[in-house]
Amino acid sequence: MAPKSGTPKKNLMLFSGRAYPQLAEEVASHLGVSVTPQDAYAYANGEIFVRFKESVRGTDAFVIQSHTNPINDWLVEQLIMVDALKRASAKRITVVMPFYPYARQDKKHGGREPISARLVADLFKTAGADRIMTVDLHTGQIQGFFDGPVDHLFAQTLLAEHIMATYQDAEITVVSPDTGRVRLAEKWAEQLGGRPIAFVHKTRDPNKPNQAVAKRVVGEVKGRLCVLIDDMIDTGGTITKAADVLMAAGASDVVIAATHGVLSEPATKRLVECDVREVVLTNTLPIPEEKRFPGLTVLSIAPLLARAIQEVFEDGSVTSLFDGNT
Amino acid sequence: MAPKSGTPKKNLMLFSGRAYPQLAEEVASHLGVSVTPQDAYAYANGEIFVRFKESVRGTDAFVIQSHTNPINDWLVEQLIMVDALKRASAKRITVVMPFYPYARQDKKHGGREPISARLVADLFKTAGADRIMTVDLHTGQIQGFFDGPVDHLFAQTLLAEHIMATYQDAEITVVSPDTGRVRLAEKWAEQLGGRPIAFVHKTRDPNKPNQAVAKRVVGEVKGRLCVLIDDMIDTGGTITKAADVLMAAGASDVVIAATHGVLSEPATKRLVECDVREVVLTNTLPIPEEKRFPGLTVLSIAPLLARAIQEVFEDGSVTSLFDGNT
Amino acid sequence: MAPKSGTPKKNLMLFSGRAYPQLAEEVASHLGVSVTPQDAYAYANGEIFVRFKESVRGTDAFVIQSHTNPINDWLVEQLIMVDALKRASAKRITVVMPFYPYARQDKKHGGREPISARLVADLFKTAGADRIMTVDLHTGQIQGFFDGPVDHLFAQTLLAEHIMATYQDAEITVVSPDTGRVRLAEKWAEQLGGRPIAFVHKTRDPNKPNQAVAKRVVGEVKGRLCVLIDDMIDTGGTITKAADVLMAAGASDVVIAATHGVLSEPATKRLVECDVREVVLTNTLPIPEEKRFPGLTVLSIAPLLARAIQEVFEDGSVTSLFDGNT
Amino acid sequence: MAPKSGTPKKNLMLFSGRAYPQLAEEVASHLGVSVTPQDAYAYANGEIFVRFKESVRGTDAFVIQSHTNPINDWLVEQLIMVDALKRASAKRITVVMPFYPYARQDKKHGGREPISARLVADLFKTAGADRIMTVDLHTGQIQGFFDGPVDHLFAQTLLAEHIMATYQDAEITVVSPDTGRVRLAEKWAEQLGGRPIAFVHKTRDPNKPNQAVAKRVVGEVKGRLCVLIDDMIDTGGTITKAADVLMAAGASDVVIAATHGVLSEPATKRLVECDVREVVLTNTLPIPEEKRFPGLTVLSIAPLLARAIQEVFEDGSVTSLFDGNT
Amino acid sequence: MAPKSGTPKKNLMLFSGRAYPQLAEEVASHLGVSVTPQDAYAYANGEIFVRFKESVRGTDAFVIQSHTNPINDWLVEQLIMVDALKRASAKRITVVMPFYPYARQDKKHGGREPISARLVADLFKTAGADRIMTVDLHTGQIQGFFDGPVDHLFAQTLLAEHIMATYQDAEITVVSPDTGRVRLAEKWAEQLGGRPIAFVHKTRDPNKPNQAVAKRVVGEVKGRLCVLIDDMIDTGGTITKAADVLMAAGASDVVIAATHGVLSEPATKRLVECDVREVVLTNTLPIPEEKRFPGLTVLSIAPLLARAIQEVFEDGSVTSLFDGNT
Amino acid sequence: MAPKSGTPKKNLMLFSGRAYPQLAEEVASHLGVSVTPQDAYAYANGEIFVRFKESVRGTDAFVIQSHTNPINDWLVEQLIMVDALKRASAKRITVVMPFYPYARQDKKHGGREPISARLVADLFKTAGADRIMTVDLHTGQIQGFFDGPVDHLFAQTLLAEHIMATYQDAEITVVSPDTGRVRLAEKWAEQLGGRPIAFVHKTRDPNKPNQAVAKRVVGEVKGRLCVLIDDMIDTGGTITKAADVLMAAGASDVVIAATHGVLSEPATKRLVECDVREVVLTNTLPIPEEKRFPGLTVLSIAPLLARAIQEVFEDGSVTSLFDGNT
Repeated sequence: MAPKSGTPKKNLMLFSGRAYPQLAEEVASHLGVSVTPQDAYAYANGEIFVRFKESVRGTDAFVIQSHTNPINDWLVEQLIMVDALKRASAKRITVVMPFYPYARQDKKHGGREPISARLVADLFKTAGADRIMTVDLHTGQIQGFFDGPVDHLFAQTLLAEHIMATYQDAEITVVSPDTGRVRLAEKWAEQLGGRPIAFVHKTRDPNKPNQAVAKRVVGEVKGRLCVLIDDMIDTGGTITKAADVLMAAGASDVVIAATHGVLSEPATKRLVECDVREVVLTNTLPIPEEKRFPGLTVLSIAPLLARAIQEVFEDGSVTSLFDGNT
Repeated sequence: MAPKSGTPKKNLMLFSGRAYPQLAEEVASHLGVSVTPQDAYAYANGEIFVRFKESVRGTDAFVIQSHTNPINDWLVEQLIMVDALKRASAKRITVVMPFYPYARQDKKHGGREPISARLVADLFKTAGADRIMTVDLHTGQIQGFFDGPVDHLFAQTLLAEHIMATYQDAEITVVSPDTGRVRLAEKWAEQLGGRPIAFVHKTRDPNKPNQAVAKRVVGEVKGRLCVLIDDMIDTGGTITKAADVLMAAGASDVVIAATHGVLSEPATKRLVECDVREVVLTNTLPIPEEKRFPGLTVLSIAPLLARAIQEVFEDGSVTSLFDGNT
Repeated sequence: MAPKSGTPKKNLMLFSGRAYPQLAEEVASHLGVSVTPQDAYAYANGEIFVRFKESVRGTDAFVIQSHTNPINDWLVEQLIMVDALKRASAKRITVVMPFYPYARQDKKHGGREPISARLVADLFKTAGADRIMTVDLHTGQIQGFFDGPVDHLFAQTLLAEHIMATYQDAEITVVSPDTGRVRLAEKWAEQLGGRPIAFVHKTRDPNKPNQAVAKRVVGEVKGRLCVLIDDMIDTGGTITKAADVLMAAGASDVVIAATHGVLSEPATKRLVECDVREVVLTNTLPIPEEKRFPGLTVLSIAPLLARAIQEVFEDGSVTSLFDGNT
Repeated sequence: MAPKSGTPKKNLMLFSGRAYPQLAEEVASHLGVSVTPQDAYAYANGEIFVRFKESVRGTDAFVIQSHTNPINDWLVEQLIMVDALKRASAKRITVVMPFYPYARQDKKHGGREPISARLVADLFKTAGADRIMTVDLHTGQIQGFFDGPVDHLFAQTLLAEHIMATYQDAEITVVSPDTGRVRLAEKWAEQLGGRPIAFVHKTRDPNKPNQAVAKRVVGEVKGRLCVLIDDMIDTGGTITKAADVLMAAGASDVVIAATHGVLSEPATKRLVECDVREVVLTNTLPIPEEKRFPGLTVLSIAPLLARAIQEVFEDGSVTSLFDGNT
Repeated sequence: MAPKSGTPKKNLMLFSGRAYPQLAEEVASHLGVSVTPQDAYAYANGEIFVRFKESVRGTDAFVIQSHTNPINDWLVEQLIMVDALKRASAKRITVVMPFYPYARQDKKHGGREPISARLVADLFKTAGADRIMTVDLHTGQIQGFFDGPVDHLFAQTLLAEHIMATYQDAEITVVSPDTGRVRLAEKWAEQLGGRPIAFVHKTRDPNKPNQAVAKRVVGEVKGRLCVLIDDMIDTGGTITKAADVLMAAGASDVVIAATHGVLSEPATKRLVECDVREVVLTNTLPIPEEKRFPGLTVLSIAPLLARAIQEVFEDGSVTSLFDGNT
Repeated sequence: MAPKSGTPKKNLMLFSGRAYPQLAEEVASHLGVSVTPQDAYAYANGEIFVRFKESVRGTDAFVIQSHTNPINDWLVEQLIMVDALKRASAKRITVVMPFYPYARQDKKHGGREPISARLVADLFKTAGADRIMTVDLHTGQIQGFFDGPVDHLFAQTLLAEHIMATYQDAEITVVSPDTGRVRLAEKWAEQLGGRPIAFVHKTRDPNKPNQAVAKRVVGEVKGRLCVLIDDMIDTGGTITKAADVLMAAGASDVVIAATHGVLSEPATKRLVECDVREVVLTNTLPIPEEKRFPGLTVLSIAPLLARAIQEVFEDGSVTSLFDGNT
């Protein structure tokens, strides 16, 4: 008798945490698949339980979670889902985190601090993740925190296309809200067709001793449409203050664009009160009705995620989707 | 010139998560040390940040966290603390978790489930934990989930001494609230001086077909003081139902004893309404005022933790403190 | 020139240690494959050598060993086989151990003990095992000792079906031989259609001080057919003593059922001398002629193993085969 | 008989690769120790061999290498030294790399690229390194690439003190040579007492279509002393071009300051030809005579390294030495 | 909607370091594929950069590097290539190193030495290598240094066939140039049809005290054609000295055969001056024109590598290619 | 309150497997310590259990096992002891294996073989071993199989001193029993003061076609005292056959010297029947009365082990004890 043999099959299955199931459903619909049914709930003391309702043996699993608040619940839930997939013999597990949690703690700013962004990468590796897919990382170096392939998608293109379609003829200056995002502003300026850049920073006026620290603009903004960019808006303090400074410096108008709409309290209030023409975000994180306001535009990240998942599944290559991982 | 040399020093430092700082303070006071000061808080989107305010280089660090609800926040906070200690050159890191989180998910009860208790052990190993100290594990096998030393403390002794002091002369039967804790009941029975044991279980009466499932007692309880034991009380459903069954079966009185007072809603209500003489718990988890009620006795676990930490620090051995790790 | 490409093939190969080749042959025959030929022998000083006689590159390898005495030889032999498969480029290696060795040492019962069941899992991981397949673990938590998928098969069903077919109309009580197996007895009771349960335990009679420890039954057994269950019978001391206690307590008859027939000396003698109606075991371990006796029924585990291997190979799902890993 | 016991000793030993032994000697002299004697040489085919001439058992080893060209030789030599120390029972191994090799490849800038800075961290971990000590990382996130403590020293303070001592009364603007170092310029500006900042960037003039890309200054530099800063000067192209742009924009003078003087061809020629008042570097990398020129100031990093090694050895804490790891 | 499914494809891609691209081209041509195009260069300070120009997702990657001098550059380049492949989602990565670097440092010859050959294996494992393919290892034990499959090819057969074709009728003695290669000489003697063997060794003449150490032949060589064998020729000192000793001992002629032509200075000079009939090598390492001389025969290893890669890709088995890993 | 601090203590504890307790006792006596008391036994089915009777927290543990037949029992026992020590918080664990088990399987001699010597190293690493101490490895490369320090002791010196004391004035030739030990013979020859060497090998006489394979001596042995050396004597076939060949070739006398007396059946019989003057062994393995015979000299390895353990404990250095790990 000869050994049993055959041709292996591969199949793609999509899994979703409970943080933002609508995004997973939207991705599933673009892919033409269903989100795998599961039982997922928290016990009375908060411990999370997950069980998948279909066999996952040998599958190419993509586990989507959107790391909104309560962020630690969703982080642990996704880790538990990965553990369950590993133990149930999934063939390959890709963790899809459109917003990388703890990305801001990507280095030690002072003594005796954690590097939580590295910790997150290691926790997923330990749980059983083979790959990570994420969008517009706070810093690109975070790719290097994971010991394996990271598909780093580029939502900035999505935002830039919207800006171009809407404000193409304006005299645009791309503005970084602080000194840490000037390189990002430069990339935006290139994508918008070679625009000038500027940044806002906190400074003492060295010519006036004893004067308190103030925000200043460095670069040309007078009479120009300022596109104020960042990777995320959390409470919105820095960016709305920067918008105020720009208006005070004579900007004709301000448009805010950022990938991740964390929108923690009181971001919505600040953005509403701040006199900007438009705020453009994506839905890497859920933006519920109560956080929305006139002048807010939310672009869907789902088509980008769906195309990337498709390419990963088929070992294809669409360089334009990825920042550094075609 | 000769190489620099000297005698190494060792020092014990205690760290506390924010879940239940009073317990850490109590332990610190028994040890004669202070809890190390730190900055610890959550960002607006729930991400937790921790920074220690004193040098921890070369220290023998003990990191206490009490895994109460919101349990995932406290789990992630403790992981982040361990990461910060590792990166700040602590010499040895012992994770002290009086209540082991996710202990009930210690095996797969059905297909495609996680084994979250193992995952928790691996996450701490990855973050940098060298050792774990814990109290009355849901099952002893969880010791084997961690790749390193586990100090498994025995709070049951504490509870049993209280029972003996209070009810020594009663005709006691030790009762397990289900079939899974009968071995535990046997250990209790030995500690209480050789008492009979019984258990409650859900069953159909095989002699009465078509009858619904009911709870039944197996063992002698009539006219006896039933000490109903468990490792934890979460919502209290099983144990209060068991108390009812015991009273219905003619028990003279019921005393409930358990190590971990999870006391999720509606545990307090159930325990109050259930007609038992006393409920004895420890403070491995915080039991705030609003969950307390007449008839509840809370024994402090702090002296036991303090002695164990002392022994670990000094490489001592006090077998009586430990279940299986002198 | 384009890169070379093609469609991968997969093939199943079965390997057998020398402990119980008949079981592997039986499994192979159910699968319609041959056991892969090999050279396997011990050198004069006991060192074991194995070499496979056919290429194993890219194969889906299943390595069966039956951990009977001399158990350490068979353990080391299986580790060596896994090492040889890893180094010869097998694609996936599943360790099939119908009886998990050292399962009883699954926790520390006292200080300074090993947790050998965890050690065994780690040794196989180190040697190169990707997966484990096993039958009726001593405790379900052992699944969590392995860092990867564990297929935990359910032979209890096989035994229960035999009991039902033979004694369906009897007034059955399911009895645990000690306090540690009461939960198992409950599962059996459910499988046999809702039967009452009981257990035997060692106790002092608290009403008669100074009296020696004795075995007592807790639960109704008088005039009933007692099905005395356990996961394994090693020397048979506990279970035959329990049978005696049951008969003394008025049981009409006793049937013993257990998955693993370790049958170390003097198990056979004890079982023969003990007045039970039938002893039902499976052949997860070899039961040679000299250990057999009238009244012993041995059910073959081979069909179950073969079906499970087939499902794993084909990424199929047969929930009924598995306890917790469909 | 009682177990043998005693008090452990600790001793510090310094080891040096062959790239820049003078730096190690200088550090040793500050510490009051000798560099451990060794045999180190390359075989005819370039393979490097190292053997230490004194016992290193139980030592606290610090292995200094300065990653100058031929950088891969010095990288491999240091890995080999770590391996030899591990195998000879050193107690703790700290890799001292004043200039972190491959720091610029800290993320993927395009598809199918390595993240060599992470790879370097992993290679040292694998070889046996327990800790890393380094100076002014290209990006702070690289700290997170190593799975263990990283002592990140701050040479910028050294440079800033020199600037303050020399040009305190000048009207200084701190200038970043491109958009990626603006945050660094801000830190400098704070250290120099609250100075304005500016940056140079490559841009099309958006008002003059079809015009080629040119370098432009953003920020006030006219009539001011521009302190042009960077973490390293490799071939010097970017920074000398920036100096030219600043002079053309009316700067009164330019001073260049950078931690790492890589000074690959034709850096020296460019710096000489470029009309700047002073170039300030440290000796994290060797700067041989032939690369030196009038107007070059080289500050020694040795006192900083020596103090840091001392503190690490003694588990001390001197926050001012470290960026983020007291 | 059903899960997406399909049949996986596999494709072979060949990658080449810059050390000896001609060998990779030759292998590619035998396989009927192209070497994957890439950007690979060193920065001014020697840091190497590699980027592949085609998608490598899901590929079966074979990365060839020939470890000639500057050997550490080529070692680091190959590590970086493996890292890039891992991060770009290659499915399997086989490191092809015809000459295993640092193979001579395969044990500690004295105290406090590295075991660099083990270190090399670990570095590649860390970078992401799944398998190693190599030719005629300095010692077979090096296979055991890598934690995974090693395909150990046998070039000795190639050399032996050439010797047989050329000198079949001669009275051959196979000679080891020192005591460490006698076992190798024995294998050669078998391949050449059962020839006598001899060896050269350094010795004092025990019968003449105070006499200096000299080289002596042990075995019959007088009037015979001596085939002097080794695994590699580095500077050629040992082997040419051995040839002189053989001629002095009356050998009729000497032919030198070795797999790896390291040929460091002054190997070529020595081999030319030494009066041997032929020197036979393979091209596991590049042998440039200036190192070649009359009497040198270089056999190509490319067909062997190509066949082995083909078999590995197709999970085939050609035992004759491999030493110990069919 | 200040943190608790103090001076750490270190203490040495010796542990012994059950294979050869007399050796451990002898080592203990040299060290002036007691072997730590323990419970160690096998269950009826062969599973081994170990529990230490004293606290081992923080200890510097040395675990001696002598890998005689039944070798797999002793291997598994030692692994279990290491696991127990790790879980009981021993500070450092050194595995002392005077005879390294499975050392002969240190490479693949053919396809699809294990490399069991590497596997053994990995198993101990996994169980928790920090270091290995061993004597006269079959091949020095095995040091590289363990990822950590290996103290490789030199018993050959012990044997050589005995030979020198006994036969100093004889005309000695050192003889290797096959082609694989010629390098070892050379080392012996140096230790004995520059003696000639020879070897025995199996060969066809190339001048007499069709003749069967025979053993031949290469080198001068006529009228000389042949010291026939090897690292171990297992069944004694090769070495006694070699002795016969030497006598037939005119040797005046033969002395056999080897470190490891495995002495599997029928070694003793063969050695007795073979006409040699003396057989010299050490007691790395137990040599019970029934295997001893007139003409056998057994030298104790205990003083060497004791000195080495002392040095390791005290971080001392005695180069002469070690081969390659001072």
